[in-house]
Amino acid sequence: MHAEIIAVGTEMLLGEIVDTNSKYISEGLADLGIDVYYHSLVGDNETRMEEVISLAAARSDLVILSGGLGPTPDDLTKQVVARFLQRKLVVDQVALRKISAFFEARKRTMTPNNKVQAMYIDGAVSLPNEVGLAVGNFYHSDQGADFLLLPGPPHEMETMFDQTAKPLLASQYQRSQILSTRLLRFYGIGESNLVTKLADLIDEQVNPTIAPYAKETEVTLRLTATGQTEAENQQLLDDLEEKISARVGRYLYGYGENNSLPAVVVEKLKQRGLTISAAESLTGGSFQAAVTAIPGASAVFPGGFVTYAAKQKEQMLGIDADLIERYGVVSEQTARAMAERTLALTDTDLALSFTGVAGPEELEGHPAGTVWIGLAGKQIPTSARLYSFQYDRSRVRNSAVMTGFSQLYQALAQIDFKR
Amino acid sequence: MHAEIIAVGTEMLLGEIVDTNSKYISEGLADLGIDVYYHSLVGDNETRMEEVISLAAARSDLVILSGGLGPTPDDLTKQVVARFLQRKLVVDQVALRKISAFFEARKRTMTPNNKVQAMYIDGAVSLPNEVGLAVGNFYHSDQGADFLLLPGPPHEMETMFDQTAKPLLASQYQRSQILSTRLLRFYGIGESNLVTKLADLIDEQVNPTIAPYAKETEVTLRLTATGQTEAENQQLLDDLEEKISARVGRYLYGYGENNSLPAVVVEKLKQRGLTISAAESLTGGSFQAAVTAIPGASAVFPGGFVTYAAKQKEQMLGIDADLIERYGVVSEQTARAMAERTLALTDTDLALSFTGVAGPEELEGHPAGTVWIGLAGKQIPTSARLYSFQYDRSRVRNSAVMTGFSQLYQALAQIDFKR
Repeated sequence: MHAEIIAVGTEMLLGEIVDTNSKYISEGLADLGIDVYYHSLVGDNETRMEEVISLAAARSDLVILSGGLGPTPDDLTKQVVARFLQRKLVVDQVALRKISAFFEARKRTMTPNNKVQAMYIDGAVSLPNEVGLAVGNFYHSDQGADFLLLPGPPHEMETMFDQTAKPLLASQYQRSQILSTRLLRFYGIGESNLVTKLADLIDEQVNPTIAPYAKETEVTLRLTATGQTEAENQQLLDDLEEKISARVGRYLYGYGENNSLPAVVVEKLKQRGLTISAAESLTGGSFQAAVTAIPGASAVFPGGFVTYAAKQKEQMLGIDADLIERYGVVSEQTARAMAERTLALTDTDLALSFTGVAGPEELEGHPAGTVWIGLAGKQIPTSARLYSFQYDRSRVRNSAVMTGFSQLYQALAQIDFKR
Repeated sequence: MHAEIIAVGTEMLLGEIVDTNSKYISEGLADLGIDVYYHSLVGDNETRMEEVISLAAARSDLVILSGGLGPTPDDLTKQVVARFLQRKLVVDQVALRKISAFFEARKRTMTPNNKVQAMYIDGAVSLPNEVGLAVGNFYHSDQGADFLLLPGPPHEMETMFDQTAKPLLASQYQRSQILSTRLLRFYGIGESNLVTKLADLIDEQVNPTIAPYAKETEVTLRLTATGQTEAENQQLLDDLEEKISARVGRYLYGYGENNSLPAVVVEKLKQRGLTISAAESLTGGSFQAAVTAIPGASAVFPGGFVTYAAKQKEQMLGIDADLIERYGVVSEQTARAMAERTLALTDTDLALSFTGVAGPEELEGHPAGTVWIGLAGKQIPTSARLYSFQYDRSRVRNSAVMTGFSQLYQALAQIDFKR
């Protein structure tokens, strides 16, 4: 059993908008354990729509279309699918009354093509549209592929999918097997390195499966187990995670979809009742912006400094001008002083500092990407580490911020803080 | 002449990420006047990739693929296309040296699969990757379809497309008609409002065409003229822009693809030799991060404060505790005091302040989204404006930052600063 998703709309082929519907539907189908093999996108062109639909029906068990259910002359999805299935369109009277009422309430005349929005393919289930006017369709066929037709505007599509279509698909395609997934999040290791270290596990994978995915500053592994019960699946996932942890556990910082390294660090600080501050030069406030992006950050973060110019490192933080003159802005000494002075000024438990060269130009003879990150704390010795990020300006800054969180994460793991 | 775009990656079929590459490429092809008939998306599966590629080659003149050029075993795009074209893969020595240097600089061992990133299809042009390691490919075929292979990570793909692939396509597929586009950028007006004000112009559009597009905090209009000469096109674009400006010119802040409101404001400050600072509460450093994201920001921005907790507004800025106690943190008085104290402490020409409620919780009885933005300057009276952003936490912060830039932009336009 596998599905295919087709988005319909010329505006997406012109690059005016991104198709987010196909992602949303894919995510929902993944929850149901329905495999998706293809996404396609086609314009509001009858001939090419017919071609894409007949290809999809030939190679997939379920074809899901979004878009082209509206009232304008280029909305043709329902008509083309009906012709392909050799069925006619019939009127959903409840939906038609809703459309009439909509136009009456606005004192506008209902044009004939608005009525099309209330029509569905004969033999299909008409799916109500809670936030719009065009009904959806689910057509089950005993021989060929099944069809699900959804509206194009994302809020209409998402509402209809969640409220009506997804439960309908769940009951239609009951699986005897249960699917369980676990997402592992890694920082400080590249995708190719991670995959190399786990090569034999990845080669052997059958159940659970292992899918690596690299984002700009981190890598995730999605483990997916299939079995008769949730308990059986969790056991399979536990066993595999244990093997993975034995090799690359030091880079594993968290689990789940919406759980970034900043969120994990802020949560750990909160649990321990610790506070943090920062002085930022090349990152220009990005670290503090990332901390305060987490709801409830005020429990751990009172504030900090953006000391972009050398003079502000002296004025705001009170760093000795001689020290900066002697060692330079991009130096271990300056990074340490920034962290220590910030700790003293804000009276927090920990303070980070960022100083370096975002680029594209070099600074003080150091190439772009050279970054010192300092860490001071009430109960730990001050340290500073040197990094060399070989990327463009935006990614150098981003990598510095994420490495700051990683340095904090490691410090929190290794040191037994006492209040 | 028409093209088709294929995105490769199982993570997109699972709904983990949205394919934004196909939109970006479509937009670029629209600029070149190349029609796009289909988008497809396929997983990292050799059989299905072959099937999708051979279908595309049969029905399109140009097939563009993004993704699957990386170093892991599931990156197969280049291999599958080479096999389809019955060509072998050869090594790009320049790219290989870059990869070796990358690993040496990090004192890491280069694994064999990293070498694949430097390989290209025999007979193709190898396209350099300025921000990553995997080269792109452009293969021109005298009989069948042409192939363009681009990397999957959006920042790599976008850089390669803009810098190398798009000019290459432009010279490869010369049109007799010339196409010229102009992108107008608006801030402070919603898409539906903008479209309503320009309704008759949009309805009448033939040449130039007008394509509105709404991003999270701004709206753009893409004007596209078609004619025999560049001069003729520019005249058509000038005439249309004049009509648009007469209606909504006060919201028009800039032109072009990579020209955000922050970039325009930083450039204007630089031209006038003015400096800026900030004190941020709810935005937590995001405004300063946006300023310093612009290369060369050091000419206009020496540094600033993140005063997240009330206590830090007193300690860092020296604001009277009584004032905060009396009026609250979320108040005109606090916003004004923050801007004025920051101006005095940093000795800049202008200083902005942000104080308010990011949410999701309310604060001091003010609902989430309540934001005061203060502006002080050496040559202007201090002001503060109240906003109410009805969004989630992240968008409230983002809207506050962009509105801060907008307030600065207006101040710079209205006031004749003298040094």
